[in-house]
Amino acid sequence: MHKKLFIPGPVEVRPDVLEKMAKPMIGHRSKEASELQRRISDNLRKVFFTESEILLSTTSGSGLMEGAIRSCTAKRAAVFSVGAFGKRWYEMAIFNNVAADIFEVEMGKAVTPEMVDKELSTGKYDLVAVTHNETSTGVMNPIKEIGEVVKKYPEVVFIVDTVSSAAGTKIEVDNIGIDVCITSSQKALGLPPGLAVCTFSNKAKERAEKVPNRGFYLDLLSLYKYIQKKDYQYPSTPSIPHMYALDYQLNYILNEEGLENRFNRHLEMAKVVREWAKKYFELFPDENYLSNTLTTVKNSRGIDVSALNKELGKRGFQISNGYGSLKDKTFRIAHMADCKIEDINELLSNINDILGLE
Amino acid sequence: MHKKLFIPGPVEVRPDVLEKMAKPMIGHRSKEASELQRRISDNLRKVFFTESEILLSTTSGSGLMEGAIRSCTAKRAAVFSVGAFGKRWYEMAIFNNVAADIFEVEMGKAVTPEMVDKELSTGKYDLVAVTHNETSTGVMNPIKEIGEVVKKYPEVVFIVDTVSSAAGTKIEVDNIGIDVCITSSQKALGLPPGLAVCTFSNKAKERAEKVPNRGFYLDLLSLYKYIQKKDYQYPSTPSIPHMYALDYQLNYILNEEGLENRFNRHLEMAKVVREWAKKYFELFPDENYLSNTLTTVKNSRGIDVSALNKELGKRGFQISNGYGSLKDKTFRIAHMADCKIEDINELLSNINDILGLE
Repeated sequence: MHKKLFIPGPVEVRPDVLEKMAKPMIGHRSKEASELQRRISDNLRKVFFTESEILLSTTSGSGLMEGAIRSCTAKRAAVFSVGAFGKRWYEMAIFNNVAADIFEVEMGKAVTPEMVDKELSTGKYDLVAVTHNETSTGVMNPIKEIGEVVKKYPEVVFIVDTVSSAAGTKIEVDNIGIDVCITSSQKALGLPPGLAVCTFSNKAKERAEKVPNRGFYLDLLSLYKYIQKKDYQYPSTPSIPHMYALDYQLNYILNEEGLENRFNRHLEMAKVVREWAKKYFELFPDENYLSNTLTTVKNSRGIDVSALNKELGKRGFQISNGYGSLKDKTFRIAHMADCKIEDINELLSNINDILGLE
Repeated sequence: MHKKLFIPGPVEVRPDVLEKMAKPMIGHRSKEASELQRRISDNLRKVFFTESEILLSTTSGSGLMEGAIRSCTAKRAAVFSVGAFGKRWYEMAIFNNVAADIFEVEMGKAVTPEMVDKELSTGKYDLVAVTHNETSTGVMNPIKEIGEVVKKYPEVVFIVDTVSSAAGTKIEVDNIGIDVCITSSQKALGLPPGLAVCTFSNKAKERAEKVPNRGFYLDLLSLYKYIQKKDYQYPSTPSIPHMYALDYQLNYILNEEGLENRFNRHLEMAKVVREWAKKYFELFPDENYLSNTLTTVKNSRGIDVSALNKELGKRGFQISNGYGSLKDKTFRIAHMADCKIEDINELLSNINDILGLE
């Protein structure tokens, strides 16, 4: 039996979107391939509220995160981490010999603009990397306020991991001043995993031009240049099925559901899960910085999360255990992509039924 | 109208394979995901005639090529190039600060075992990178004979790009002594683009353990370790649709068509195209090193290849122009994946008809 996924990626994908993955192939050097990538880019600019160029990468979100921190750090990167995916930014820098420091907060807390200001004022850094929505803790960092601080330092390139939030909550890339804003297909965009996308500002481009050791496949500047030179094509062979599905889904998001409706639906689903969590358990993250796309619930009743998930599985649902050190101490319910309030209510009433809550 | 692809990737994909791309998602940390990756690995070992571990990468073949040359060169890499994709190995090394030299032959010629022996005898190199089937020229390098030479130098790791040949021609990885043998989904495996795979020997693993600067996403050792630690899972979120399709297609290749039949069919198709090319044009590559999966035809009649392709397009076919500097001087017909002799004959008779050949 298929289990409906309420995990923070891969998400449940609509059947009409899945169908697009099965369309016959076209050549990746054809006019049709250029038109496909150009249309995707134009529509993603609307999702990200940006005039920056859009880069596609046949990788998971991690591929573009690594590409961004490596391609855009000339001096030293400051990574502000609130959990597992913040730490990943830092590892990516270190594993590529990119000079970097990590500034961490307690799990469940958010990065504050003051923290960022304090570190940038030292003049040591020319890049700031932040996770917008930390998938391990369910914290949504205040990137708008952090962006205000970063704007005070014109030398600093601002790169943001919005892997588990973009297309599920409003992120005004140009207003906030984000230079590279990264997401991937299998989260709030509502596609299968296998494709990552990012915005790429002029400032990011000019920085990358000064970084000598950017590698090949994950080099953001090379992706950018290929678009200019080859009219929206990809340097090697991209995942055409994902491009078909993304093209179709962007039309749905922008022209059928509507962006604002999509963001509101995510917030409404989040509210339902938060209320439920507060009634029967506790919320894990600081309540001022709750994610709109997933809720990390503190396992205050000490339930056996694996047993719960096993029982849910028999009923056709799947939620997530806590991440890493939070395994068993928390559990996670994702409410992103094309999931509806009714789906959430159905899931929660099944959990209540299994646990004997009322 | 859909054009049947006779280009060297993406190839035409069977409808039943495409259908598998549209299956509902599963969690990438589930038992089911482990079983899927383990089954794929077991079957790919048969395709590659190896007992090495199999690594999967959600990238094009280039991603794993970069990962291999970067992860496995401790001292200096010797790249033997016969065209565009040989040059790419070298660029990948240089763009990652990996010490490397490139040894090139004239376009259309093959690498000789003597060339390799001469360079390795200097003792300067601890890695050899070779393209098996050069997609730009249609040359198939004698990797078995090159492998014999490499075996004389126990320090040397042997990495081979079999992107456009694996699963279309026999490559006995363990007998030849290949440490990392790379291919990608959209060539002779007959899937859509978006996934790359490679073999990874113990020797390659031990080498990578000594290389400090391997990056994150394309680090072969990290892919390997994750398989051991997490029972055949992937460090980030892989393209599950491609894994579904590959799993299905490997069962078809091994248990329905049969490996030897598949290799023979490729050779038969190659013979038909070569005969045709010799009758009406000339073969571009050295006749001793012809590819079994694609034929590069010398444009000895000076035809307008773009006009031919446009006309073919109206009839539902697509072939390839020459690559890079060989554009217009050559054109390429791929005969790989699940294409049949009848398809090839149909294509060739349409070309004859358009060009008025008989």
